[in-house]
Amino acid sequence: MVSFECDYIAGAHPEILKQLVETNMESLPGYGMDHYTESAKEKIRKACGCPDADVEFLVGGTQTNAVVISTMLHDWEGVIAADSGHVSVHESGAIEFTGHKVIELPGTDGKLSASAVRDYLRWFCSDVTHDHMVFPGMVYISYPTEPGTLYTREELEQLSSVCREYGIPLYLDGARLGYGLMSKASDMTIEDIARLTDVFYIGGTKVGALCGEAVVFTKGNRPAHFMTSVKKRGALLAKGRLLGIQFDTLFTDDLYFRISKHAIDMAEQLKTIIKEKGWEFYMDSPTNQQLILMTEDQMEALGKTIAFDRWGVYDSTHTIVRLATSWSTSEEDLDVLRSV
Amino acid sequence: MVSFECDYIAGAHPEILKQLVETNMESLPGYGMDHYTESAKEKIRKACGCPDADVEFLVGGTQTNAVVISTMLHDWEGVIAADSGHVSVHESGAIEFTGHKVIELPGTDGKLSASAVRDYLRWFCSDVTHDHMVFPGMVYISYPTEPGTLYTREELEQLSSVCREYGIPLYLDGARLGYGLMSKASDMTIEDIARLTDVFYIGGTKVGALCGEAVVFTKGNRPAHFMTSVKKRGALLAKGRLLGIQFDTLFTDDLYFRISKHAIDMAEQLKTIIKEKGWEFYMDSPTNQQLILMTEDQMEALGKTIAFDRWGVYDSTHTIVRLATSWSTSEEDLDVLRSV
Amino acid sequence: MVSFECDYIAGAHPEILKQLVETNMESLPGYGMDHYTESAKEKIRKACGCPDADVEFLVGGTQTNAVVISTMLHDWEGVIAADSGHVSVHESGAIEFTGHKVIELPGTDGKLSASAVRDYLRWFCSDVTHDHMVFPGMVYISYPTEPGTLYTREELEQLSSVCREYGIPLYLDGARLGYGLMSKASDMTIEDIARLTDVFYIGGTKVGALCGEAVVFTKGNRPAHFMTSVKKRGALLAKGRLLGIQFDTLFTDDLYFRISKHAIDMAEQLKTIIKEKGWEFYMDSPTNQQLILMTEDQMEALGKTIAFDRWGVYDSTHTIVRLATSWSTSEEDLDVLRSV
Amino acid sequence: MVSFECDYIAGAHPEILKQLVETNMESLPGYGMDHYTESAKEKIRKACGCPDADVEFLVGGTQTNAVVISTMLHDWEGVIAADSGHVSVHESGAIEFTGHKVIELPGTDGKLSASAVRDYLRWFCSDVTHDHMVFPGMVYISYPTEPGTLYTREELEQLSSVCREYGIPLYLDGARLGYGLMSKASDMTIEDIARLTDVFYIGGTKVGALCGEAVVFTKGNRPAHFMTSVKKRGALLAKGRLLGIQFDTLFTDDLYFRISKHAIDMAEQLKTIIKEKGWEFYMDSPTNQQLILMTEDQMEALGKTIAFDRWGVYDSTHTIVRLATSWSTSEEDLDVLRSV
Repeated sequence: MVSFECDYIAGAHPEILKQLVETNMESLPGYGMDHYTESAKEKIRKACGCPDADVEFLVGGTQTNAVVISTMLHDWEGVIAADSGHVSVHESGAIEFTGHKVIELPGTDGKLSASAVRDYLRWFCSDVTHDHMVFPGMVYISYPTEPGTLYTREELEQLSSVCREYGIPLYLDGARLGYGLMSKASDMTIEDIARLTDVFYIGGTKVGALCGEAVVFTKGNRPAHFMTSVKKRGALLAKGRLLGIQFDTLFTDDLYFRISKHAIDMAEQLKTIIKEKGWEFYMDSPTNQQLILMTEDQMEALGKTIAFDRWGVYDSTHTIVRLATSWSTSEEDLDVLRSV
Repeated sequence: MVSFECDYIAGAHPEILKQLVETNMESLPGYGMDHYTESAKEKIRKACGCPDADVEFLVGGTQTNAVVISTMLHDWEGVIAADSGHVSVHESGAIEFTGHKVIELPGTDGKLSASAVRDYLRWFCSDVTHDHMVFPGMVYISYPTEPGTLYTREELEQLSSVCREYGIPLYLDGARLGYGLMSKASDMTIEDIARLTDVFYIGGTKVGALCGEAVVFTKGNRPAHFMTSVKKRGALLAKGRLLGIQFDTLFTDDLYFRISKHAIDMAEQLKTIIKEKGWEFYMDSPTNQQLILMTEDQMEALGKTIAFDRWGVYDSTHTIVRLATSWSTSEEDLDVLRSV
Repeated sequence: MVSFECDYIAGAHPEILKQLVETNMESLPGYGMDHYTESAKEKIRKACGCPDADVEFLVGGTQTNAVVISTMLHDWEGVIAADSGHVSVHESGAIEFTGHKVIELPGTDGKLSASAVRDYLRWFCSDVTHDHMVFPGMVYISYPTEPGTLYTREELEQLSSVCREYGIPLYLDGARLGYGLMSKASDMTIEDIARLTDVFYIGGTKVGALCGEAVVFTKGNRPAHFMTSVKKRGALLAKGRLLGIQFDTLFTDDLYFRISKHAIDMAEQLKTIIKEKGWEFYMDSPTNQQLILMTEDQMEALGKTIAFDRWGVYDSTHTIVRLATSWSTSEEDLDVLRSV
Repeated sequence: MVSFECDYIAGAHPEILKQLVETNMESLPGYGMDHYTESAKEKIRKACGCPDADVEFLVGGTQTNAVVISTMLHDWEGVIAADSGHVSVHESGAIEFTGHKVIELPGTDGKLSASAVRDYLRWFCSDVTHDHMVFPGMVYISYPTEPGTLYTREELEQLSSVCREYGIPLYLDGARLGYGLMSKASDMTIEDIARLTDVFYIGGTKVGALCGEAVVFTKGNRPAHFMTSVKKRGALLAKGRLLGIQFDTLFTDDLYFRISKHAIDMAEQLKTIIKEKGWEFYMDSPTNQQLILMTEDQMEALGKTIAFDRWGVYDSTHTIVRLATSWSTSEEDLDVLRSV
């Protein structure tokens, strides 16, 4: 059985495990005060071309979204997101749990357009009676988006420009950031991301780590007493080394980007196989997740050797099936799929 | 430099790392649906003599307390804890963040007495006007307590009895459970803990794991849709295997208890060294943490070779210093301390 | 200057003030334990044909929505509402403040269709992976809706049926309940509302009271320790008599319905005036609020003698203007408008 | 039956009702935008000698505490209060509901000493590891305190000085402010209160109003977008006139202080009666609430003609009984008590 179910089916990249093993018996201070964590922060700042950025590590994606959004919003504010955004749909209400509304705007293929955001902000600010509403206090986007699409640099610049015009931060959820940046369709670097957003996170869980996400506050805008707010949300890891060592490894010799590129190469082969099989794409994705349409019969046949994800219902006879590659996908895995 | 600063200075027990390495490339489902997690649950149920218990894994201690307490309390309830309890003092308000009050009762040496709890509950229930107050809906204790003391079985039975009399759950925070149970002063087994409490957690972070705590709902009382509530609190780990594999290892061949016993053996030697040095104990602790009184001069001298924790202020000339052993403390570490 | 701005421009119906004055110096217990409050509850139960209903009084509408929704939802649940619903748009995130998501479904003219709700619930229940989403735990509707439309009895029966099928409560926000029920377009009585919903509130603030809303739990489903949860939300009024006496008066000799009918009669005349003036309706409303389209010039002219509400932007040259009648609207007020 | 049960047994002062009646049919804007509310604010600013203060009206005391505290605290902060403070004990956890801890320090006769606060703040700031704790971000006191005692001006100046030294606001709960200031034992004016605190509220509910409390932000420190935060907490009253007109009346010709003084005069007579009867005082109170000790037999006898409050248990044979006067207490009421 070979799995293309998602991009978190394997443990950690072997290089990471090696580092965890080698450093295991060192005595290190807790809560991220260790030198591996410091080194990881420094490497990330460098990779982002952002020497003054504040970098903080958290354990998982939903946690990161809830911590970042709720510590950056004011009491009277909510966060704008596409209606398909992860914070809108798939986090069991984690943002609302912190007392803030997700203001959902219609997205297109998972993306929020600058014009939709500008129209909303302009409308909101046009009328003083809107103080009975939640103030839009942040814009949340994901890169790649949930269905696997990408913002162009032009689009991100426009979003960034709208946010600056209205004085609210732009937050980018990079749960799969590496897979986005290494996509052939991407015209951006991580330095672009850092420049155009106010805060973003570099996803580790889905890109080679056992767990962990690196939040980058790019504009000297880390919330005050952030560690205490993290602890208050139950998100402070005692052995911060677990996150520090992993990201230190991922940002040594570009490992993060190399393994992301591997996943994209595998995805390109996957797309070729899909076409060869004559399977129908649900939508065109330039990243590591491919969505295709299948009948029950097709799924039953495929399911004999391949694990996959039922992503959603398409129509009465077709299901949207997700096949994902990751840093851990091998040529052998593709061969098995090819021979189905 | 040798560290006795706390019990989370090292990575994971080598056996755990070995298992993580060996299983690393297996394709496993996420969110704790993998077979290692299932195996870990089964082993814990067995160790607890509690075949029907629900076992759930979370990442850290504060997170576990916040998740368990807030999902088990009713809207109108708070949790009773000793004024020195971890939830009362050292969690940055994580319980209050979920909307619930910690009702602090005076403890003695970190322990909450059954009579103090009964008096409070009796008083609360004696007067209908108390419906302008927070209802006591749970009792929280820790084992060992924060300063390292232990409840006797008799004491735990009394607390359990009070809780049952008033129909509220007894919750035991076992961040250092192994070190408590393996103490020579302990007259309890994990089966006693499971029998006498309604819910407790087995601490992994401080007892050999990189991270992770195992919550045991002992009475068929796991809150409904627990996984969704966990996700809502940002506490659901995508790669649940990281927790499952660690606890599966810890509960194979009694590893959890063997390494806990090692820490206690080291603590016994530590106590002997302290006595030999003529250092004054702040209080007598039968577990892995020893609290002693030191002057600035003494701390300066000690600090040249030994890392330790300044636990608190004692008086104008003395500080309470914590020296802790753990599963990772070695005879060599003690030798260094002995030769200071 | 005559105001048609909204339906809360005047104080209280004179009969209410008279009762407040007459009872003013009576010594009464606090927190709704007085006999006027008890009498009001009994009259409301009778009016609803619901002898076993629990009736509770709160101060305002947003407060009522937040208290009712957050005490009835489970931790893992949110509330379904139309995207134009008051809880979705105009309560500054009061529901989210309690930690729960408002699941917004597209409405038509402010109404939520039973089929839209059924489709959502069916879809949600179709897939176990939806446990990463907020569970739909209640359906919220308003009667009349925010733009002034009404559900037919048939529509309410269908919504009620869907909710029962899926085992979740149907909650009706009756901020302007009287104006809905007294509309010529209404085919329902308050007994129908009580029968078909699980909980609803009878709005006082907009229908003759200084403040106050009466929540009716129609199915023996008042949350446990409701008073304590109300107090916890800062919503418990010390002098509960203020609410009790007002609702006791409103439900004596059908005052509530008589003054509601008056507002509707005034609204019918208002519609005639609007037609005579040749003003364009934005939408057809059978209740006390009329929405019309006006240019800046028209608004400037009207504004010289009439106060009105700018409800929203229609297009670059037209604004949606709201003209509302209420229990306090007089023939003289209409005459002034007629003569504009 | 004559009631000395509490100070909210009657409706409103007749002068207030008169104003409500006279202004009843005026068309006024909602949400506190009316001219009576503006006039009330201006009169309060003048009474406080604080021309730049921001004054805001809320409905009740617990609501006011929750709104003020939660909008002024930062995310990582809690509020210091005496262990007997209203926010600590009698608000069903309303502060915790907003996500903030009440840090309870031992009080003496209901009062918090400046030295206790300074010691706590000094200790907290002495150690960086305290960032795992809730930061003390405000000091809450009540005047009079819950058992009826008063801070001297000297004591308030000291508290004020500690708060300024540590840069945190001092908040005074004046639910019974008038009864405190008019006490013969008081050496302060409302101008002193305004000068020495950062925010306080003038209680209306217990001093002549049907409902309502006036919050005074004395140092240009009203939280941004306060109205939206108030709405978010379900605390915004649609007919703000109800609060504005009441406070406008209370602050016309010193009515607030005159009726407060009446209550104190009545309390002085009450104390004389208590002494004449030979009843034992539980503690000496210079304000409108008197606490005495009674046996069951005594309470049974008294209860035949007098309503009173069982304030608490004293010992196995005695109950602490509260007898309160208020603006509505009459000479005739005292005569009845005298003749018991």
